[in-house]
Amino acid sequence: MHRSELTTPALVGDADAIDRNLDAMAKALPGHRLRPHIKAHKCTGLARKQAARGHTGFTCATIREMEGLAAAGLGEDLLLANEVLDARRLGALDARVTVAVDSEETIRAAADGGVREVLIDVNVGLPRCGCPPGQAGALADRARKAELEVRGVMGYEGHVMPIEDAGEREAATATAMELLKQAHEQVGGDVVSAGGTTNYALNHVATEIQAGSYVLMDRSYAFEELPFQAAIWIESSVISVAEKYAVVDAGLKSLALDHGNPEIDGAKVWFASDEHVTFAPESPVRVGDRVRVWARHVDPTVAKHERLHLVRGDDVVETLEIDLRGW
Amino acid sequence: MHRSELTTPALVGDADAIDRNLDAMAKALPGHRLRPHIKAHKCTGLARKQAARGHTGFTCATIREMEGLAAAGLGEDLLLANEVLDARRLGALDARVTVAVDSEETIRAAADGGVREVLIDVNVGLPRCGCPPGQAGALADRARKAELEVRGVMGYEGHVMPIEDAGEREAATATAMELLKQAHEQVGGDVVSAGGTTNYALNHVATEIQAGSYVLMDRSYAFEELPFQAAIWIESSVISVAEKYAVVDAGLKSLALDHGNPEIDGAKVWFASDEHVTFAPESPVRVGDRVRVWARHVDPTVAKHERLHLVRGDDVVETLEIDLRGW
Repeated sequence: MHRSELTTPALVGDADAIDRNLDAMAKALPGHRLRPHIKAHKCTGLARKQAARGHTGFTCATIREMEGLAAAGLGEDLLLANEVLDARRLGALDARVTVAVDSEETIRAAADGGVREVLIDVNVGLPRCGCPPGQAGALADRARKAELEVRGVMGYEGHVMPIEDAGEREAATATAMELLKQAHEQVGGDVVSAGGTTNYALNHVATEIQAGSYVLMDRSYAFEELPFQAAIWIESSVISVAEKYAVVDAGLKSLALDHGNPEIDGAKVWFASDEHVTFAPESPVRVGDRVRVWARHVDPTVAKHERLHLVRGDDVVETLEIDLRGW
Repeated sequence: MHRSELTTPALVGDADAIDRNLDAMAKALPGHRLRPHIKAHKCTGLARKQAARGHTGFTCATIREMEGLAAAGLGEDLLLANEVLDARRLGALDARVTVAVDSEETIRAAADGGVREVLIDVNVGLPRCGCPPGQAGALADRARKAELEVRGVMGYEGHVMPIEDAGEREAATATAMELLKQAHEQVGGDVVSAGGTTNYALNHVATEIQAGSYVLMDRSYAFEELPFQAAIWIESSVISVAEKYAVVDAGLKSLALDHGNPEIDGAKVWFASDEHVTFAPESPVRVGDRVRVWARHVDPTVAKHERLHLVRGDDVVETLEIDLRGW
């Protein structure tokens, strides 16, 4: 299929750029050194490409993602890096399942739901889930009393990911990981799970890195020293042209706006509505022209689409279902 | 089913509030005076409730919405209030189909695609689609030469919707509608389609109002004089509690952030991540508590969900599929 035959708006990816991103990470963090985070793409087709490169353990943010990977035969070692209050759907999976816990309630939910393995989730500086480092040991004891296998700790240093300067990012990572190390000493186990795309090479404590965005890559986080390239966009069509602006048929229902307005090369974006982006192009455009609209935040943008079309030049070479959406 | 049995995050609506919103609008704009905009809820179940109240013509923003309504037997009079470059899927529908056109190219697309009726889309002040008012007559002539029936004009005054003061909103509406009136004089036809939820009673020119949000109602647009009440929220669970904040399992993948951070009554929202909202509650909360998270923008929030659960008190009385998503 030719790219011009795609119904717009369409989520489109550069097949070669995605392959290069996958290869660069597989080279840097081979096999189980990377536990790819599925939330970034919610796509078993891309998970298979990661597994084919040796990363056969996965990180998930939702139970639906866990279920989908298990059903796809990718359940060798699945981590739900998130707290749940009802783990019965996890306990029922035909897969190796580990879940994050950070409280007595979530430990009880894991045990009651039939999950057998947990990581103690530790707050390393991002105000979200995770227990204070000093409480990790006591929680591990409780989990073991509930007959759960405690594999180790996790602690996501999400607050360091946007730091542009690599030296500062590394220092902030070290500060966060010092907390995780302290917790790990109390907890024990083989696993220290942390890290993400922008500090995958700067985290010297984690035994496994939970990076996900590297595959499709956020444009705003594509810092100079990183070997990953923004690889997806929304393929749109110009549907209306006025004197000072033009309008494409991609809007905030196909583009996540939580990191700000989308970008169009060679144009100034004015604003996005539900199904439109109004923009001022530097050179004239015509009704029917195709325009690439770049979302600033990849993860929630992908989650708005049913499928991802991979192109090589103008050929659509593969279409992947975004099959792990919902909860 | 009891509300507490819903898997969180879940899109939940107050069945009585929705009925009241539907009834209030049906009373104010009976029958074809309202052409409900489907983009607000993307749900044939809610469209049926609107049709049962006498509104049997609908407005859509996407071809998928048009297809879904036609397939559901709701195709008596469907308007695609948006420009398209390939109208073949519209021409193939078993429904009365009218499409907006604002250029030679979109007129040609309508004719080539087998669509028989159009409205001339006029720019009335919002920099988006629509021709300049002075060109509407010439476009109507072109459309008629292409053997299209020109039913009249449309012109969406979206820029007036956020004006909080009703008097100013009415004045801005009048200014916009003066342009539409001029265009209509050149174009002819029975239809003058415009308006929305916040000015449905203030637009004295349109023959039909395209309001949609009134059913579920945006909290930020629920101005004092309007008889509509915000009726949907994201039902979430507290999954982690720290000293100064707590975390629920609803995040920006279940809540649209384009109008700003979501709101939680009795709490200050700190920030939203993909699957979490971190907030500081005024009174202590516990892991497992249910929390209502209010999105500021209803349309794109609904579009993130597969279904809407309607509750009366703690009973889930109806579950509707959000079946018109995608493109």
